[in-house]
Amino acid sequence: MDAAAREARGGLEWRVTVPEGASVTVEHEAGAAARAWAWLLARVAMVWSTVAGSARKVWRIGADDPRKAVHGLKVGLSLALVSVFYYTRPLYDGVGGAAMWAIMTVVVVFEYTVGGSVYKSFNRAVATASAGVLALGVHWVAGKTGELEPYILTGSLFLLAAAATFSRFIPTVKARFDYGVTIFILTYSLVAVSGYRVDQLAALAQQRVSTIAIGIFMCLAVSVFICPVWAGQELHLLTTRNMDKLADALEACVDDYFAEDPAARPAQAKSDGYKCVLNSKASEDAQANLARWEPAHGRFAFRHPYTQYGKVGAAMRACAYCVEALSSCAGAEVQAPEHVKRLLHDACARVGARCARVLREASRSVATMKSYSALDFAVADMNTAVHELQGDMRSLPSMLAVKLADTSLMDTMPVFTVASLLVEISARVEAVVDSVDALATLANFKQVDDDDDDDEKKGEAEMTTKVHPLNEPDTDEESLPENQTSKA
Amino acid sequence: MDAAAREARGGLEWRVTVPEGASVTVEHEAGAAARAWAWLLARVAMVWSTVAGSARKVWRIGADDPRKAVHGLKVGLSLALVSVFYYTRPLYDGVGGAAMWAIMTVVVVFEYTVGGSVYKSFNRAVATASAGVLALGVHWVAGKTGELEPYILTGSLFLLAAAATFSRFIPTVKARFDYGVTIFILTYSLVAVSGYRVDQLAALAQQRVSTIAIGIFMCLAVSVFICPVWAGQELHLLTTRNMDKLADALEACVDDYFAEDPAARPAQAKSDGYKCVLNSKASEDAQANLARWEPAHGRFAFRHPYTQYGKVGAAMRACAYCVEALSSCAGAEVQAPEHVKRLLHDACARVGARCARVLREASRSVATMKSYSALDFAVADMNTAVHELQGDMRSLPSMLAVKLADTSLMDTMPVFTVASLLVEISARVEAVVDSVDALATLANFKQVDDDDDDDEKKGEAEMTTKVHPLNEPDTDEESLPENQTSKA
Repeated sequence: MDAAAREARGGLEWRVTVPEGASVTVEHEAGAAARAWAWLLARVAMVWSTVAGSARKVWRIGADDPRKAVHGLKVGLSLALVSVFYYTRPLYDGVGGAAMWAIMTVVVVFEYTVGGSVYKSFNRAVATASAGVLALGVHWVAGKTGELEPYILTGSLFLLAAAATFSRFIPTVKARFDYGVTIFILTYSLVAVSGYRVDQLAALAQQRVSTIAIGIFMCLAVSVFICPVWAGQELHLLTTRNMDKLADALEACVDDYFAEDPAARPAQAKSDGYKCVLNSKASEDAQANLARWEPAHGRFAFRHPYTQYGKVGAAMRACAYCVEALSSCAGAEVQAPEHVKRLLHDACARVGARCARVLREASRSVATMKSYSALDFAVADMNTAVHELQGDMRSLPSMLAVKLADTSLMDTMPVFTVASLLVEISARVEAVVDSVDALATLANFKQVDDDDDDDEKKGEAEMTTKVHPLNEPDTDEESLPENQTSKA
Repeated sequence: MDAAAREARGGLEWRVTVPEGASVTVEHEAGAAARAWAWLLARVAMVWSTVAGSARKVWRIGADDPRKAVHGLKVGLSLALVSVFYYTRPLYDGVGGAAMWAIMTVVVVFEYTVGGSVYKSFNRAVATASAGVLALGVHWVAGKTGELEPYILTGSLFLLAAAATFSRFIPTVKARFDYGVTIFILTYSLVAVSGYRVDQLAALAQQRVSTIAIGIFMCLAVSVFICPVWAGQELHLLTTRNMDKLADALEACVDDYFAEDPAARPAQAKSDGYKCVLNSKASEDAQANLARWEPAHGRFAFRHPYTQYGKVGAAMRACAYCVEALSSCAGAEVQAPEHVKRLLHDACARVGARCARVLREASRSVATMKSYSALDFAVADMNTAVHELQGDMRSLPSMLAVKLADTSLMDTMPVFTVASLLVEISARVEAVVDSVDALATLANFKQVDDDDDDDEKKGEAEMTTKVHPLNEPDTDEESLPENQTSKA
């Protein structure tokens, strides 16, 4: 409340800070004219600083991703093309005429991604055609009944609009035909209402369809041939980028927890990378929905398994939940003493680094669309490290008893929680790898034996064996038989 | 892959299962006619079962939330009203005329929530008016230049369309004026292109604005006066429902972990409630965006602090991440033995139950828009329970040494992880309470001392004191001085 009030009063104060660093302070003076002048100056400076700040932000949006600026130019270009096309045609006949529909189509159909444009084009074309045919049919039937015509037309409009609107709540319709339903209702109502007095409906309909076709053609041509943005590729990039961020965050969180010197801690931005993963479900879903409309392009076939990316994303989110819990351990007030932490430091850091390596290998596999044997070796390495960590955890009490007789067992608990979380994270990283493997099968990733650049990794990995951290043979030591039943 | 292949083959098999329960099996027979007949029967049965299944699903959507069906009827009604309005007017002049714009407005502007309709109406009205005025101005200037007119008009169209499209990438514009930008480009291009040959632009613009006004008026009247669906109220309900689900899930997960008998475990649906919380960010954001457009209604003022609901949602999600980790502990392969679990069972169950009670009290406070003192007492209770749990955790090693000399310390570790997670969850529940308190301040919740129905709760709570679980005085016992610096 206080901050808001101060902000609201901000406009009335006489001190204005210009963002360039110069601070202009205007004192209260006797003269009313001087005061007014000062007020004006302050206002101008304030407006200027706001405008400059916003301009900088907007500039950064374009500079960070120039394709966004290019998208604006593309829309401008296709509109200009359509308008030139209509300037030069003799059959132009004012606002109500054909030109309007071509322009409307371009404005409404042009989307950032090719998939979005195809989705809207397809929906617009099919919905216009089907609603037009249906409306002409109903119109013909209604015409036979004479006086009842307006009632039939209005009644059918009511029923169709109600049914079509309700159909938008069906998930499949919502995901794939939402825009089409709007256009269906629109076209049907226009034809139904116009039908009351206009006779040349069929000719008009044909003219409109051909104009919409011109608009759609223009749109898709510009969208595909000038710096195309493919939804499928965006989804692909989002997935690999998130996987890398998750790997960085995981390593950073472990380093953060075990860092003895605050200055040695990794940058906050790095360990916060998992938050991107947590929040990317909506954009993943949207892009997968649009990508299904895209034709084959680059390494992406027409029916590339885009839905599997959603599953990879879900597995990454499950992993990110645990990383979140891990990062909160690093920030907790209650910490194990440094000398206790040091006992598990190496094993934990190794598990963190190897989990991160697995994620990076998986990301590389998705990014290059190839299956590397290095991924399997990395998973094996990770499981070995988890194994060692579990061994260290088991021997921790005896180590403490030998080395540090005065340390209470309670002190080891926080570090044990971190270790348990790491074991759980490694299991979830393996789930990510499973979903990537499924993607590799569905999308026919090429199998590659990367002997050239991974000799040393391979040699290191071949000495180890792949053991699932939760199915390892010696869990029986830790869980008594009665647990086995409660798990069923 | 196998499952998909089997599904694809499914259409060719001769066994058809009618969902009513009757299973129709048609054997291969010699006669071609009989075979064709069987094939036809199977096909009809299959189509019928598909249609019936879809119909049931659609019916359930409407039955679960009848407001969705009512929404369809509302759209049908307003379209019928607009079309009747235009049937009865003498100035009707075909498709290109005024009726079209009223119908178009209704179809495009009518949204499920009042906020959505107001958002689109406002954007449509303002964008149409501003783009129209701007286009008329540019048109007037271009008219003065003579031959250059088409170049100026097309050039200005290109630049404006590019700039406006780019502006949609600015987050504020995207959230509040996305639809307006589309309409702005649309109106400007229509007027600019039409301007080439039509003279009576001003009269036409005035007619169009009045028609759009009629459409908007019709829309808003139907939307507000017939079974209105308020985005603000939906957001409010979503928040309280999620809070209750989180409380249920938390209790269920704790019960699940400590259940000795698998049959006694709570239903999976209950413990999965936290997943709704994890996935509701997108709908919260969307509803908060629409709710800001809504006028005062019921208990919601015009500028109700809808953005604060997003913060409550974020706090709940942070809590849900931990509940997710807790629920994975219950499903883990490595479990502490039952007799070790039993030592912390009571304390953990108490913390879980009290955290859930705090969440339920917070949910009640939001739902009724009143601040209850019971919430503070519930928080105090929760902190007492956390305190007790931490005491139990500290005394666990000595208890084990006395009671169960043969139990390895390693066995206690998984249950300790669960206890640590519960302590962390209680801290995050308190963060939820803080965000609810901030909401209560911003939205002026009425302060209520619920003496009548909460006497016993109050009596129980007054004996305890409010202690933050992470700031309790005896953390110093657990963390050595060198930790204090690494935390800074």
